[in-house]
Parts: sequence; C-alpha cells; structure tokens
Amino acid sequence: MTASIRHYLQFSDLGAEEYAWLFKRAALIKKKFKAYEKYHPLADRTLAMIFEKASTRTRVSFEAGMYQMGGSVVHLTTGDSQLGRAEPIEDSARVISRMVDLVMIRTFGQDKIEKFAAHSRVPVINGLTNEFHPCQILADIFTFLEHRGLDAAGNPDPAFLRGKVVAWVGDGNNMANTWLQAAELLGFTVHLSTPSGYEVDQAVAGIRSSDSYKVFKDPMDACRGADLVTTDVWTSMGYEAENEARKKAFADWCVDTEMMKVARADALFMHCLPAHRGEEVEAEVIDGPQSVVWDEAENRMHVQKALMEYLLLGRVD
Amino acid sequence: MTASIRHYLQFSDLGAEEYAWLFKRAALIKKKFKAYEKYHPLADRTLAMIFEKASTRTRVSFEAGMYQMGGSVVHLTTGDSQLGRAEPIEDSARVISRMVDLVMIRTFGQDKIEKFAAHSRVPVINGLTNEFHPCQILADIFTFLEHRGLDAAGNPDPAFLRGKVVAWVGDGNNMANTWLQAAELLGFTVHLSTPSGYEVDQAVAGIRSSDSYKVFKDPMDACRGADLVTTDVWTSMGYEAENEARKKAFADWCVDTEMMKVARADALFMHCLPAHRGEEVEAEVIDGPQSVVWDEAENRMHVQKALMEYLLLGRVD
Amino acid sequence: MTASIRHYLQFSDLGAEEYAWLFKRAALIKKKFKAYEKYHPLADRTLAMIFEKASTRTRVSFEAGMYQMGGSVVHLTTGDSQLGRAEPIEDSARVISRMVDLVMIRTFGQDKIEKFAAHSRVPVINGLTNEFHPCQILADIFTFLEHRGLDAAGNPDPAFLRGKVVAWVGDGNNMANTWLQAAELLGFTVHLSTPSGYEVDQAVAGIRSSDSYKVFKDPMDACRGADLVTTDVWTSMGYEAENEARKKAFADWCVDTEMMKVARADALFMHCLPAHRGEEVEAEVIDGPQSVVWDEAENRMHVQKALMEYLLLGRVD
Repeated sequence: MTASIRHYLQFSDLGAEEYAWLFKRAALIKKKFKAYEKYHPLADRTLAMIFEKASTRTRVSFEAGMYQMGGSVVHLTTGDSQLGRAEPIEDSARVISRMVDLVMIRTFGQDKIEKFAAHSRVPVINGLTNEFHPCQILADIFTFLEHRGLDAAGNPDPAFLRGKVVAWVGDGNNMANTWLQAAELLGFTVHLSTPSGYEVDQAVAGIRSSDSYKVFKDPMDACRGADLVTTDVWTSMGYEAENEARKKAFADWCVDTEMMKVARADALFMHCLPAHRGEEVEAEVIDGPQSVVWDEAENRMHVQKALMEYLLLGRVD
Repeated sequence: MTASIRHYLQFSDLGAEEYAWLFKRAALIKKKFKAYEKYHPLADRTLAMIFEKASTRTRVSFEAGMYQMGGSVVHLTTGDSQLGRAEPIEDSARVISRMVDLVMIRTFGQDKIEKFAAHSRVPVINGLTNEFHPCQILADIFTFLEHRGLDAAGNPDPAFLRGKVVAWVGDGNNMANTWLQAAELLGFTVHLSTPSGYEVDQAVAGIRSSDSYKVFKDPMDACRGADLVTTDVWTSMGYEAENEARKKAFADWCVDTEMMKVARADALFMHCLPAHRGEEVEAEVIDGPQSVVWDEAENRMHVQKALMEYLLLGRVD
Repeated sequence: MTASIRHYLQFSDLGAEEYAWLFKRAALIKKKFKAYEKYHPLADRTLAMIFEKASTRTRVSFEAGMYQMGGSVVHLTTGDSQLGRAEPIEDSARVISRMVDLVMIRTFGQDKIEKFAAHSRVPVINGLTNEFHPCQILADIFTFLEHRGLDAAGNPDPAFLRGKVVAWVGDGNNMANTWLQAAELLGFTVHLSTPSGYEVDQAVAGIRSSDSYKVFKDPMDACRGADLVTTDVWTSMGYEAENEARKKAFADWCVDTEMMKVARADALFMHCLPAHRGEEVEAEVIDGPQSVVWDEAENRMHVQKALMEYLLLGRVD
C-alpha cells in the first residue's frame, strides 16, 4: 500500500501533466461550490492538520474545503503536541497515519515534514515550511490562469504559462523558492529582485538549472514587462527577531504604482497575505484594479480541494 | 449579493415581527432535536467562529447547533489569529467570508465586529462584545416565554411580553445594554439597579428613549413586582483588573431570597453563567425553584440554530 | 432518564460479559473501517472532549472515531475553560450535558471526573486521569486478543485471558491501577515491579483483593513467564517536577531484551506511547518483532468507537 502513496511536500512532487489536470479539476470543484452543489467524494475521510505556526488562511481553506467534500478534520496545534518533542516525529507519523486518511503539516524545517512523510501510511501535504509553500503557488497559478489563461472551453490552460514572466519582489523566502520550482516545471520565467543578503539559494529552491529565472538588483527592472507582479511580507513567520534589520534592508522593495507601470498593461498583482500596506506593497496597488488578492485567497480552498481529492482518489469522474 | 446580507450584531438588528418568527422557529427546532429527528437545512454550510475571549457556552452551543443542522464549524482563537493584529480586520473579513457561509465573533469592542461585518460577504453574528450580547438575550426571552408565555397552540408568544417587568440587578454591562434594546423593541420594561459608577449609558445601549426602563438605587425596589429577576457576574471578561474594587462596590447587589420575595410570586430567575454563588447571587436563589438557568443555557443552542437558519435561508418551511 | 446513563470512569464500570461484547463489536467496527464501509450509528450525535492535559493519541482517536461513525465533536481545552475554575464542575456538567450527547474528559484528579459525571445528563468517558486510563487498557487487551486470543470464528475471545500473565514494569501509575482492575474482572494475573516509592496502592487501584496480582522487587522476576510485557514513561503528565528524581529511581526499570528473553517465547510488548527509547524501554524491544505498539495505538480508535456506540445505543444490530 505504501508504494502508491503520493505526498505533496514540494511543488516538484507533481508533474506538469498532473498540474494541468489539477487546474481543470479545481475549476470544476469551484463551480460546484458556487452552485451549492453537493459533492462528497471524501465522505468518511479524515484530515489531520498539524500547525506549528499560526494560520488563518491555511486553516480555514483546508478545513472548510474538507467539510465541503464530505470529510472531517482533526486540528492539532503545538498546544496539543509539538512534533519531535514528546516523541520522535517517526512515531507521531506512524500513530497519526493509522487513524486518519490525510495529513497537512505547517512547520519549520522541511526536514521535519520529509521525515513525517517517510513514516506515514497516508499522503502528507505541505501547508508551509521555511523552505516551501506549494499550496499557495498552486492557488496563485490557478488564479493567474482564471484571469488570463482560459482555453476555448473556459478551462484554465497551463500552456498559456509558457513564456510568461512572474516578477518576485522582496524576500528570497519559501514563496520565492516555490515559484522557481513552478517556473522550471511549467515553463515560465521568474524575475527575482531581493535585497542583498536575502537572495534565493538555488540549492535550497531545489531546481536543476538557472534557465527559468533571472536576477535583478533593481526591483523596477524585475517588474519590466512582467505578466504578474507578486511579493510577500518583509518578515515571514519565524524570522520576527530580524524585523528591524529587515525593515531597513527591504525599504526599496515596496511594490508601488511605478513598478506596476513598467509591468505589462494587463499585469496582475498577487500577495499571499497578510499584507502590510506601506511596507512590501502600497495600498494603491493591493487595493487597486490589477490586484486579485481576494480571488487568490479564496482559490487556496478550491485548489486544495482538488489536491486532496487527487492524493486520495486519483483522477476521478 | 451583499445587499441582502443580514447581520446580527445588536438586538435591534431584527424587528419585532422577525423575533416572533424566530421564537416560534426555535421552539420547533428544539422539538425536532429532542425527538432525534434529522434536520439538516445547513448541510454543506460552514460557520467560522472567532474567539478573542474564552468561552464554553457560546462555543458548545454554536458548534453543536451547527453540527445538528448538518453544517460544519471552523473554530479560530486568538492563538490562531488576533483580529486586527496580523492584518487589518477588513482583510480578514474579506478572506474568511470568501471561504465560509457564516461568521460568529466574540471580541472586545463593538467597533471591531461592525468593521468585520462591513467587509464580509456573509452574515456575521455577535457572540458577545463589550457592549452587547444579543444571542444571550434571545435565549433569555425564549426561555421566559417557554415557561410563562405560550399561546393556545403551545408556541412562544412575544405578545405576552407587553407590560412585563424584567429586573436587572448589578453591572450596567453588555447584558444590561441588550436588555434595554429588547425592551424597547418588544414592549416590556426593564428595572435597572446598578452600583454607583456602573450605570448603563443610554447612548452606549443604543436606544432611542428612556420610556422602556426605570432606574432604581436600591435593588429591592428594582425587583418589586418583577416578572423576571436577572443578574450577571460582578466582573465580566476583560475587566479582571477591577475585580477588587468591584467586589466592594457590588456588595449590596447580590440577588437573594429577599429580593425574590418582593418580585411576583411566579417570577423567574435567570443568569447567563458562569455564576459565583455568594457574590452576585445566593445559592438558594440560583439553585432554587424559581431558577431556570439550565433551561436558559440549553436554549442558547436552540435559538441560535433558528437564528443561523434565518440569516442563511430566511423563512423556510 | 438519568437512571439509565452509563459512564465509563473506571475499568470496573463495565462487567466481564459487557467486555466480551465490546471486544467482538470493536473487531467488527474495525473491519468496516478497513473496508471503507459507511457506518453512521452516531449520526447527529455530538461528543464534547474536555482536555486539561495535552494529548495527541486520545484526541485523534476519539475525534476521528466519532466522525467515522457519523457524529461530530466539540474540542474544549483549558484555554477555553478550566474545569472548576470559572464555575463549579457541577455547573459545567449541567450545561454541557444539555447540549451534547457524550462527554470525554482528560483531567487530573479522578474526583473531578466523578463529580462531572454525577451531574451530567449524558455518558461521561475517562480519557485519562491521575488514577485511571481505562480506554488504553481496553485497547491493550483488544490488541492482545487480536494477536493471541481469537476464537474459531476469528473473534477476540476474553476467555483466552484466564490464567495469562501481564508484566507491568515501572511506575505504579494510572495504567498500573487500571491493569489491576482489568485483571480482577477478566481473570488474568498482573506481575508488578515498580521502584521503591512508586508502588501501586491497592486502595487507589480500587480492587477488592490481592488475588489477581503479585509484586516483584526485580523486574526480571516480574517478566518471567509473562504473556505480555508492558511499561510506560517514567514521568507521566503532571509529575514533570519529579523528573530528575524519577530518572534515578527508575534506572533499573528499562524493558530490555534480557527481560523479553525470560518472558514466554510468544510474549508481546506494549507501550501506550509516547515512548522514550533508552529510558523505560530499549529501542531493540519497542522496534522489535514482539512489539505491537502501532496496532495498540490504532486500536484505541476502534475500541473507543465500540465503547461510544455502546454507551449511547446499547447493544445494536
């Protein structure tokens, strides 16, 4: 049984053709949801969610999504049990995966989730680690296609991504790493502009070549001609102690209307939220007409429903 | 879509005729529950509960109530996310209301819940703020009618409330404010007796006139001829620092058998719990034959089920 | 109605004949679960879980189990409400048991859970107290029978327990107390070996005679001829302050391969987890071929499902 388990720990854990299927499926599942159509493929299935970092969006999107598909959720926080403290992670994985059908983990090091998955009997999903945030990028690309890349039948078409440019402005963090994996896999280019000392490390990002990204000192240059401009908070969870130093270092990496002007006229703006207006993004941008951040947030739920269905049931219908 | 959203942030958010419907509906829903009759009008609907203050009664009554109606619940605490800290309340409202069908909030200032509601795509329910506690008064009035005001068909009849007297003994808090709104709307009178410095502020209570309440210095005078005597803890959540000062100020505002004797012979006693026997109420009263506090607590669940059904589906059947 | 409520606060709250039924039922429920067979006898029923001590296994096993049977769960922690602090336990019991169908409590003193049960309208289950852990022993005996005591029809047969020897090595804690109750009730013998100062107290264990257990100074002697060797952490929850003293006192009470060698050749090893390899058990033992700790953990869920069904519905089918 173990042989056939599929985990989703990094964006590269699925192939291009699987993503095509997932995007199409997410669109269908979203349509059902909007129509209040009952759809319970995960009836009697239970998702365990393990949070070692706080969360609103990930929490609500996975939990509501699971309920909508007929399943149920057990929500564990570090108050309940801290991975690796009371017992080895391997033991937690063995026990929890005997009782539930699926596990989502938000934790610190990628090594912790990898270790859990290696001893789990059921699929494990990365709900954010220090290194990667694949579910967010899944939602972002789906949102991009929904707004700019539908095929004739109205389905999101990843072929549309080829040659497109995503500008990443700011921290070389888990989001940036995951964008690089996605670009390599799906054939678009990432323009990276990070302050000195906060660069993306290709080895950490886990990509094979540097063909799918370009590095720019000036964020204006990164945004030039971009189809999508995106950023994240200057200080991600777990790095709060560096907050003041980061505020200085990142001062010029605020996505403003000037940056949006040099992007393509139909460029979108995304942010995985929460956002700090006046820091990493100007209010005029995030609250402006090119911003699709609310759709992006909502789409977390739809793409994750498609993902959970796929990991548990494969290609259905 | 936004135009038709109904929130329940204050007691005055619904009209007298709507309350008549809600009381009748709650009685029916309670009957179904007692008979183990399956009733799932909220199947596939999700309620997000946001707690910034601790809770047992509100938590269990909303959550169990939602499950009994076929829905599901996402329970967020400040451990998960504190409203207005990580991101503006407006952003939280926009995101959360994209993923769920209904939101209940227990928080501090009424302004926070008003701000959330203003940016929410789905109905928002006040599960207690510093200013109001409408769900509790909804339960209290339902409980009063259940015991004293049924019509010939056995349904709670709010017409019965006209001319009745509710004595509020103690703190001029969110409960007192909400009683005043209810009295103005449903046509009964509140006798208020609070220690000096803890008076109700008509402006905060949000009522138009002083016709529906009378203020008494002596709690005995407030209870005289009352149909219902009710009180609350001396120190509500959020005011713990004032505890010692309050103990002195409130010493004469303990509902005791003397007070119950000057009320009507068939007067009821209510308390929204938790109760501190020997402080705001004598054990002889809360554990005595006129007390209906356990029915009152249980009825939170039944009236809230009717409320959630109404906010989401309108008048069904 | 109150008259017919059955609680499960100690192992001795059910009789031998009821256990025979429960083991058989748990086997059937486990089979349904493994076959993904829909089985919802507890549809529309709600379990309230009250945790005053941290938990992973108890949390996941009860919660997932309840969902699998069609029910729902309200999970309360001390963050939400601490039993006996905000209000008397009796009041919490009265209120909560008006809104849910079943209550599971993990707390400190057995007196707290007894007091709760005395004022509850619905069945109460002990999810671990300082004195007892009946659900764990229920799972342990089921696991033992599953591996060593099936009848001709493939059902767990408690008659097989008669004359068997369970060696308890280590702390004279809630697990040891519960093993003594089980031995007296189901007709096997417990070999107890605890460090000096950590002995089991027959009065606390609540057994009538000393016929069903033997005390050994040397843990090797306790294990000699045993059918099952079992232990627990040296420092249970609530005793963390004694940690250093316990590490010294318990040094010779580590279940190692030598102890397993003097047990019967087909002896099993169990541990309720979490385990500290190198302290109360050697890695060679817990990760070795005689260990059934993962089945034991999983079986918590199956036996508790049978237990919840029995307490709410009696003997069904």
